[in-house]
Amino acid sequence: MDCSVGRALDVLGEWWTLLVVREAFHGVRRFEGFVERLGIAPNILSARLRRLVEHGVLEPRLYSDHPERFEYRLTDKGRDLFPVVVTLMQWGDRWYAADDAPTQLEHVPCGAAAEPKLVCGHCSEPLAARETRALPPRELSRSASRSR
Amino acid sequence: MDCSVGRALDVLGEWWTLLVVREAFHGVRRFEGFVERLGIAPNILSARLRRLVEHGVLEPRLYSDHPERFEYRLTDKGRDLFPVVVTLMQWGDRWYAADDAPTQLEHVPCGAAAEPKLVCGHCSEPLAARETRALPPRELSRSASRSR
Repeated sequence: MDCSVGRALDVLGEWWTLLVVREAFHGVRRFEGFVERLGIAPNILSARLRRLVEHGVLEPRLYSDHPERFEYRLTDKGRDLFPVVVTLMQWGDRWYAADDAPTQLEHVPCGAAAEPKLVCGHCSEPLAARETRALPPRELSRSASRSR
Repeated sequence: MDCSVGRALDVLGEWWTLLVVREAFHGVRRFEGFVERLGIAPNILSARLRRLVEHGVLEPRLYSDHPERFEYRLTDKGRDLFPVVVTLMQWGDRWYAADDAPTQLEHVPCGAAAEPKLVCGHCSEPLAARETRALPPRELSRSASRSR
C-alpha cells in the first residue's frame, strides 16, 4: 500500500482498535474499564491491547503486583490519533445522531463547544475536498513556486 | 454503541471501505480503477461498493448501456469523510512514512501545501486532546455559562 492512509489502516487493523483508543481518550486505563465501556469480549480486548502496545500507541504500566495488573496509557503516537477520532465522531454526529444528543467536546481554554474544524495550516481557511489536490511533494513545490 | 464514533465505525465496517473512499477522493470512479489502485479482489470490492451505495456514501451512475456499467461518485455524505481520510493520512505520514516522500495535499486556493490542522471552531486555536473534555450537551452549556 503506497499511501499513508493504507499504512495507518494496516496498523490500526480494524475498528475495535480505534474504539479502544477512543476510550483511552475518555480516560479509561484498565482492562475492566474497557470491557465495561465497550462490551468487548476479554480475549478480543487482550489481543487489541497487545497490538496497540506493540505498535507504540498505548504503553502498559504496572499498578498492582499481587495480582499483577497493568493499566494502559496513550503514548505521544496514540495521542496523535485524536484528530482521527474527533473527525470520525463528527461524521457520525452529522449523519447518524438522530434525536439523542451526541457527546460534545468542550475546548477547555476557551470554554466553548469545540466544533472542530479542519483548516489549511498555511492560510487557515477551512479545508474542503474540492479545493485540494493530492500531489507528490516534488510536484507540489514546483506548483507552489509557479503560483508565486 | 452510544457514541458517534461507534456508529460511524459500524457503517464504515472495516478498513477496505475507507480505502475505497480514499480512492474516490483521488478521482477514481470505475470498478477497474479501484481494482487497479487497491489490488482488491473483485468480489470484495463489489461488496464494499454495494455497502457504500446502500449507506449513501457513493452513488452509482450508468455510463454504459451495453454492457451495463456504473461509475461511483461521492455523495455529500461521502465527501464529508474527507477530514477522516486526511487526519488518518497525516497520522500515517507522521509515524510510518520512512524515507519515501508521502503524498501531499495542495490547497488550491492558496497554492501551498495544506498541512491540515484541526482547530476549535470557536476560538480557532489548535485542538489538543489534553485541552478538551467530552461532555453531554446539557453539561456543556451549563459549564460554558458558568465560565462566562
